[in-house]
Amino acid sequence: MSLPLSQRFWVDSVRRLAPYVPGEQPKIPDLIKLNTNENPFGPSPRVLKAISESLDEQLKLYPDPQSTALRATVADYYRINVDQVFAGNGSDEVLAFVFRAFFSPEKPLVYADITYSFYPVYCGLYGLNSHIVPLDDDLAIDVPALLKIDPTTVSGLILPNPNAPTGRLLDLNTIGQLAAHFSNTAVVIDEAYIDFGGKSAVALIDQYPNLLVTQSLSKSRSLAGLRIGLAMGDAGLIEALHRIKDSFNSYPLDRLAQAGAKAAFEDEDYFQHCCQQIMTMRDQLSQDLQSRGFEVVESAANFVFARHPEHSGAALAAGLREHKVIVRHFDKPRISEYLRISIGNAEQNQALLAALDAVMAK
Amino acid sequence: MSLPLSQRFWVDSVRRLAPYVPGEQPKIPDLIKLNTNENPFGPSPRVLKAISESLDEQLKLYPDPQSTALRATVADYYRINVDQVFAGNGSDEVLAFVFRAFFSPEKPLVYADITYSFYPVYCGLYGLNSHIVPLDDDLAIDVPALLKIDPTTVSGLILPNPNAPTGRLLDLNTIGQLAAHFSNTAVVIDEAYIDFGGKSAVALIDQYPNLLVTQSLSKSRSLAGLRIGLAMGDAGLIEALHRIKDSFNSYPLDRLAQAGAKAAFEDEDYFQHCCQQIMTMRDQLSQDLQSRGFEVVESAANFVFARHPEHSGAALAAGLREHKVIVRHFDKPRISEYLRISIGNAEQNQALLAALDAVMAK
Repeated sequence: MSLPLSQRFWVDSVRRLAPYVPGEQPKIPDLIKLNTNENPFGPSPRVLKAISESLDEQLKLYPDPQSTALRATVADYYRINVDQVFAGNGSDEVLAFVFRAFFSPEKPLVYADITYSFYPVYCGLYGLNSHIVPLDDDLAIDVPALLKIDPTTVSGLILPNPNAPTGRLLDLNTIGQLAAHFSNTAVVIDEAYIDFGGKSAVALIDQYPNLLVTQSLSKSRSLAGLRIGLAMGDAGLIEALHRIKDSFNSYPLDRLAQAGAKAAFEDEDYFQHCCQQIMTMRDQLSQDLQSRGFEVVESAANFVFARHPEHSGAALAAGLREHKVIVRHFDKPRISEYLRISIGNAEQNQALLAALDAVMAK
Repeated sequence: MSLPLSQRFWVDSVRRLAPYVPGEQPKIPDLIKLNTNENPFGPSPRVLKAISESLDEQLKLYPDPQSTALRATVADYYRINVDQVFAGNGSDEVLAFVFRAFFSPEKPLVYADITYSFYPVYCGLYGLNSHIVPLDDDLAIDVPALLKIDPTTVSGLILPNPNAPTGRLLDLNTIGQLAAHFSNTAVVIDEAYIDFGGKSAVALIDQYPNLLVTQSLSKSRSLAGLRIGLAMGDAGLIEALHRIKDSFNSYPLDRLAQAGAKAAFEDEDYFQHCCQQIMTMRDQLSQDLQSRGFEVVESAANFVFARHPEHSGAALAAGLREHKVIVRHFDKPRISEYLRISIGNAEQNQALLAALDAVMAK
């Protein structure tokens, strides 16, 4: 093995990184995959058509580095200006740029103890400190605790809305309160799951120049495989993201992704129909789990977060796997008894329940 | 304008960034675009077919985060192991990870004064210092000067081979000498243009554990619009890149890009045929320019770098633009009299020459 030898060429900080571990993408046939919050429905047929129409010898040419047509479509959709929209290679890349652009190592960044687990990874990448505010006993964002923080002592606030992996939603009033309280720093609302029942804080960006909203096309728009993320905020915030992008990779979105993403925003009917069905199935699944004794956190996302008082989370996850159903289990303080279950299609949700029944009957 | 207000949320270092400015991608009809070294031929028909076959509802699912199938194909191609291959979202992203992984701010990074202009941008992004070694009077990499550097005083060496924007090639013996001299640091050979007549240093990676080779599918494989870059080196070097990637964005390559890139490496005949034609046209264009009085740097790339003793580079570039031909002109010390002209198809190359004749006859 040559590994040990060439590791001496690493910059020291690379050794200290604790990289993010994405939900597994196993290639087992007939697997019921409810572990990474993908959409049970495929993308809009208009997306596939738009990509197909872009699939020609023009692939030899660089894409538009600024994704102008896509950003204009998103701007129209939200009735904002194109210079208030940034597009990146998945919302993880967008967040990586956001952390670099707005959160300084000089003061700690505020986020919750139970939240998207990429945030501490970015902090490690950029050498940022964390000011961690625990969720309250109901696993809700502790807004009173956040409002007690002296905003001059921190470098910013980031929270997913709805939160992950709990699924709980904050209303726009509360988001506005937080943006106003932390008015001297960036407040980032990560809306990966907003389309499943929440209201987007994009509505507030003209009011709060420190408010940045990120979104993903991986969940509600069924395009996890195409990698598109967005950020919306004041033009000055968006300009910072462009400066980082252009110091890193001028062309993060390929021609096909730009075309597909644009088409996804142009098929509102399909989008609304899919989101509506997922919300209906989510509420049904929550009831079905409750009727089996689960405690289910109220979810505004395309997943539910649930625990059973008589069965350990780890044992349930392992048992489900034996039935070829995979869900996400986080072996972490406070949430190790929970399962995060993505909403599948009707058949997958039924298979999940049947598998759970079998596992719990043992 | 809200810009001035929200710029106060920027991390200080964002203000100091000097982002890369890519060659323009204008949307003027009938433009003869010889400014960004794209391939005049489209991608292999097998690439378009492979993408088309991946274009289905599975886009709802995340891609393989490790691009395993693509990396295995590249490993086969170069007869190396899959753990010696990294794949990223264009070679610019790969280079951004390389700079983060291997070049420490504690000592300066060695590169040439005239080279890929993204290198100083990355240095700005990561706060790295530069040890700049001027090209010699023939615009060749000054190998004797590099070999005089005390390797314990620097954090690494990076150079494109062939160099950009000059097009000059180093042979593998020299690359080996440099890798041996700088054996205590990473030596990165950026082979964006290697397929137009050079020999890849991938052949040396088993011999030099500090040698990392980056490549792009944007030029020789006609896929600038799809965004795929590679790095090949010792497994320990590649592991560092995966650690950075997984601290930044787990899924940098979408499903379609992975499928297309794999197919590009599977159509060797098409690839060789295109490269051969471009090399023939390059040599012809070099002669045609010389017969018009140009001094042409010997090129092993898909562009030529040339100046005319009686016409300023800026004036020629501006004049060509009036004839709807765009080439790259760098307004920089030592090379401001040069034009970098991408090799187009036969018709484009003829149009370039006709436009040059018209401009110079004025």
